[in-house]
Amino acid sequence: MVDLRSDTVTRPTAEMRQAMASAEVGDDVFGDDPTVNDLEAYVAGLFGHEAALFAPSGSMANQIALQLHVQPGSELLAGGDAHVVTYELGAAAAIGGITTRTWPSVGADLDVEQIAAMIRPVGYPSVPTKAIAVEQTHNLGGGTVVPLETLRGLREMAERSGVGLHCDGARIWHAHVADGVPLATYGALFDTLSVCLSKGLGAPVGSLIIGSRERIAQARVLRKRMGGGMRQVGILAAAGRHALENHIDRLADDHARARKLAEALAPLGVVDPSRIRTNLVPLDLSKSSLDAPTLAALAAKQGVLIAPMLPDIARVVTHLDVDDEGIDQAIVVLGGLISGS
Amino acid sequence: MVDLRSDTVTRPTAEMRQAMASAEVGDDVFGDDPTVNDLEAYVAGLFGHEAALFAPSGSMANQIALQLHVQPGSELLAGGDAHVVTYELGAAAAIGGITTRTWPSVGADLDVEQIAAMIRPVGYPSVPTKAIAVEQTHNLGGGTVVPLETLRGLREMAERSGVGLHCDGARIWHAHVADGVPLATYGALFDTLSVCLSKGLGAPVGSLIIGSRERIAQARVLRKRMGGGMRQVGILAAAGRHALENHIDRLADDHARARKLAEALAPLGVVDPSRIRTNLVPLDLSKSSLDAPTLAALAAKQGVLIAPMLPDIARVVTHLDVDDEGIDQAIVVLGGLISGS
Amino acid sequence: MVDLRSDTVTRPTAEMRQAMASAEVGDDVFGDDPTVNDLEAYVAGLFGHEAALFAPSGSMANQIALQLHVQPGSELLAGGDAHVVTYELGAAAAIGGITTRTWPSVGADLDVEQIAAMIRPVGYPSVPTKAIAVEQTHNLGGGTVVPLETLRGLREMAERSGVGLHCDGARIWHAHVADGVPLATYGALFDTLSVCLSKGLGAPVGSLIIGSRERIAQARVLRKRMGGGMRQVGILAAAGRHALENHIDRLADDHARARKLAEALAPLGVVDPSRIRTNLVPLDLSKSSLDAPTLAALAAKQGVLIAPMLPDIARVVTHLDVDDEGIDQAIVVLGGLISGS
Amino acid sequence: MVDLRSDTVTRPTAEMRQAMASAEVGDDVFGDDPTVNDLEAYVAGLFGHEAALFAPSGSMANQIALQLHVQPGSELLAGGDAHVVTYELGAAAAIGGITTRTWPSVGADLDVEQIAAMIRPVGYPSVPTKAIAVEQTHNLGGGTVVPLETLRGLREMAERSGVGLHCDGARIWHAHVADGVPLATYGALFDTLSVCLSKGLGAPVGSLIIGSRERIAQARVLRKRMGGGMRQVGILAAAGRHALENHIDRLADDHARARKLAEALAPLGVVDPSRIRTNLVPLDLSKSSLDAPTLAALAAKQGVLIAPMLPDIARVVTHLDVDDEGIDQAIVVLGGLISGS
Repeated sequence: MVDLRSDTVTRPTAEMRQAMASAEVGDDVFGDDPTVNDLEAYVAGLFGHEAALFAPSGSMANQIALQLHVQPGSELLAGGDAHVVTYELGAAAAIGGITTRTWPSVGADLDVEQIAAMIRPVGYPSVPTKAIAVEQTHNLGGGTVVPLETLRGLREMAERSGVGLHCDGARIWHAHVADGVPLATYGALFDTLSVCLSKGLGAPVGSLIIGSRERIAQARVLRKRMGGGMRQVGILAAAGRHALENHIDRLADDHARARKLAEALAPLGVVDPSRIRTNLVPLDLSKSSLDAPTLAALAAKQGVLIAPMLPDIARVVTHLDVDDEGIDQAIVVLGGLISGS
Repeated sequence: MVDLRSDTVTRPTAEMRQAMASAEVGDDVFGDDPTVNDLEAYVAGLFGHEAALFAPSGSMANQIALQLHVQPGSELLAGGDAHVVTYELGAAAAIGGITTRTWPSVGADLDVEQIAAMIRPVGYPSVPTKAIAVEQTHNLGGGTVVPLETLRGLREMAERSGVGLHCDGARIWHAHVADGVPLATYGALFDTLSVCLSKGLGAPVGSLIIGSRERIAQARVLRKRMGGGMRQVGILAAAGRHALENHIDRLADDHARARKLAEALAPLGVVDPSRIRTNLVPLDLSKSSLDAPTLAALAAKQGVLIAPMLPDIARVVTHLDVDDEGIDQAIVVLGGLISGS
Repeated sequence: MVDLRSDTVTRPTAEMRQAMASAEVGDDVFGDDPTVNDLEAYVAGLFGHEAALFAPSGSMANQIALQLHVQPGSELLAGGDAHVVTYELGAAAAIGGITTRTWPSVGADLDVEQIAAMIRPVGYPSVPTKAIAVEQTHNLGGGTVVPLETLRGLREMAERSGVGLHCDGARIWHAHVADGVPLATYGALFDTLSVCLSKGLGAPVGSLIIGSRERIAQARVLRKRMGGGMRQVGILAAAGRHALENHIDRLADDHARARKLAEALAPLGVVDPSRIRTNLVPLDLSKSSLDAPTLAALAAKQGVLIAPMLPDIARVVTHLDVDDEGIDQAIVVLGGLISGS
Repeated sequence: MVDLRSDTVTRPTAEMRQAMASAEVGDDVFGDDPTVNDLEAYVAGLFGHEAALFAPSGSMANQIALQLHVQPGSELLAGGDAHVVTYELGAAAAIGGITTRTWPSVGADLDVEQIAAMIRPVGYPSVPTKAIAVEQTHNLGGGTVVPLETLRGLREMAERSGVGLHCDGARIWHAHVADGVPLATYGALFDTLSVCLSKGLGAPVGSLIIGSRERIAQARVLRKRMGGGMRQVGILAAAGRHALENHIDRLADDHARARKLAEALAPLGVVDPSRIRTNLVPLDLSKSSLDAPTLAALAAKQGVLIAPMLPDIARVVTHLDVDDEGIDQAIVVLGGLISGS
């Protein structure tokens, strides 16, 4: 099976398993796990922030960060296709009581003026805007990378408006590799970030929330309320640390493979390869006679797994456990099915 | 004082007071108030629905209706400027746990295809879309009227998609008068509507939720939880009934006065009179040196009250308690301040 | 029909209707209704507090007050039979996110030491206690009155513990009349109170939240979010003011009638008349072969309405619209049904 | 350091680490992790239920289970000292909108008649009771064990009343060892259970929710919303499986050590050893001049860590990483401090 459904499907490498097996651990709810504490300090340092906190999933990391910024009765601005709006099962509203007002997502193309015009200041009868969330890279946008200049404009605007800025950086590593922007440069642009160890980096479990010492202290309470307080987390943190130290640069290989697949399928009209800059390849089936679930089911029979995201959108993702051979097989299988449809 | 802040400021007429003073009443929490029961049946009938329920405010009526359609963890689609998103203090998320995903509002101009493309079906990993809300007339849009044909397209699309349709019809009376569309024609297009007695119609208090018998039975429970169960409501219902029977047709006068004011101020570049079809006149001050709170404060000193809605938007509203003389005074005062700025 | 289901069923008197018909009004969402403003100041003054706020129901008044004291993730202590826990459809948790931890209610008998032992201070891993709510008079407790000395002990304990104290005073007027304690004496013992105009006092609609200026300013925001912002509320406030000035002392008559009924039914073993000090008479049917819904249904056929509260508890309530004749009829009908069962 | 703060502080054994290092894994959000799937089936089988679901913490497992039973606006009955009420940061109300009504906890002594009398049926104006939660063993109650006969009475009563029954079985293993009751016997008494792998059993992370296939399918959605969807969970599940197969019987040693400590400290009046049947020893300092935080701080300086739970209650917990020598040291240190105070 070539599993291209997500980069979350990677299995830990032998070295990573070794790191887990030998990790020093303690009870993280008491703050006693040295490996977690080291990882949190290390990740905070990578992004130039004061503190970080381990969480069991990217969704929890994001939702905790949003709750830090936005109280019930206030609002978050985000793209309509943002993971925090679309793929976290409505937690922002259902758990955080957070109003979401959204701009129409077109990949990672952010229009800072459009967002600025959406902000509602405190002091009027409207719901006040407390934070803006952006996604780097953008998942539903197809792994697109928000340019550094756009983010700088967003930062200036957010500061001028007194509004918080959160980065859903589950795949910020890919942006860093694709654009060569240092992680600390990204870090300086946001009040909070979430980053994920178990997507492209290949660790089995874990995300981190990054921010000021004060915010992370509050995050610890919110994490406990959401059920994210775990014990000997060092086992997982050791894998994450290994991934951070060994699996970032190799993302360039995933990007190249994604581009190769996009170029191969481009003639079928399902993807524009010029937009594929990282490891996600969304296939637009709106002009095909196959819908995404059908394509996924047929490809699975031929040994290729892909993810139906919406009726017309299937997603192909390259990662640590997919090599050149796997990509070649995917090209043959998907190309055959789409062209034959 | 000429009070143009809102059509909610109207005071009950002598006849309306008489209707209240002589209303037969009972305990509405027990379902025993004959005047409320009559009003609910009457309003349901006006819109061709099975049932209706009195609520203390338009916000509560809307929020109850949204909770009928959308469970926590599911989403509502609405315009970003919709009253339910912007002016109800975040209740949809904070009380109902409802995710809102929004399209960019441009007055009442609805793009049915755009909305159709936003719908997320059940069965995918995304938050499923359960309802769409539209506003007739559109408040922040400047009292604009959604054309009947647009609403018909929306209805067909919603049915095809299995998604509920709610109308925030606080000022649907104005649309009815402006476009000559029967209320029952509007009623047939929506699963639920809210209508307001205390805005243009001039009653002191009250809105109604309109829908099927089953939905209204659930609404009664939700109203109690939100603290909207009141007792001898017949006092208020009598005023509402009087308003419905006597104050709908006269809205044409309010519309004419609003148009007159818009035409007078148009040369100053703050309003396009061709968009003013009902009783709301938004003044766009983005090219003026006055912001909305300042204009409102200066006008108040000269006896004219208007409402700052956003930093650059002030709203002028005509209603039952504003006559031709009042409008003339408003034209002089506002025109003088804006042109002198 | 002799309607003894609740004191909420009273209909406004002719004088009260006259007060409503001639009330001066304005838009209360803008703070412009002089009759509401006067009523709020008057009621605040009665209880020696800085400010008060009109709400459409006692439930909303209570729930707003609880939200002022207790943030999501913190807890309220209350009796298990308290109206705020039992009869407000779960709003404290469902809307306010408030944990309730309860002591076993035995009428209005409060054990201050027991409550003190329940308090969980800030700084431990447990959910911190932020407020205590008591009910005066106690509804499910049978209109029982918490003695002034008990409340003083509670106040001292709450202050010592840094915990807020709220009084659900929907029927505090009855306690005032039964025990002769001045309203301001009660007021001094609580951080917030809710009082109701539409129960014993006979006004058609309305309750008030009473507290500090700062808390009431926050309450205004919470009221809007819950949908309790109404417009020309002076119509209702005028009735409330009339009730406050004319209907408090007469509650003694209701108390006497309740006692008369209790004494008449005491031989049947369903009520202990020594506990009946105000206008509520709970009938304990646990030793009868009739359950509460059946008794209520049979009595209704003979022209007497009572309220089944729980399977074994029916409630009989005296009020403004029940005279001696009505009570005599209720004694005959209820006595006959229970003794014949 | 002898760490007696909690049995959550245990570090994985060498064998457990080996099991983790060699675990077969997959992406559990896709349901693809064979080790998790096996563990879930194994644990469901131990308790005689259809299905189980892994969760990152006992708090999340409990809260998901409560949400399965109780909708917003309905209520849960539980002891006032229950972990779900007291130590999960208010999640039941703040996240689930669940009303809690509590009976006064006295250890694990449950009074089935008292609980039966608290139930409020559907169909009355009160908040309906949907579930009852009990804790086995009872944490704040001092590791006390609810007798099987009591649980059987509770089960019969719950069925008769149509109310769900949840067991917070974080330490049900200890009850099983102390009373010799088979796990499946416990399982048959509850609609849902939560069990914990990272407390007495010594695994690093993880709890499970146990119930019917239908409920566990819903639980999977709720887990995702709460941020508990993790990826290669097999790493953790392997440790849990090892613990289940190797660390249950040895709990008898922990119980003996706890009893030894309790007997040694009993003469100081801080604990009744006859109540100590499992691995938790609460020290009641209400008659000591030391409060719990002070005792904990002083003991820490002498190498013994204990947990202050409330101002007057410190908790001592025996577990896998505490041997006889550690207990002897704890007896000397705690005995010295308490007797010298």
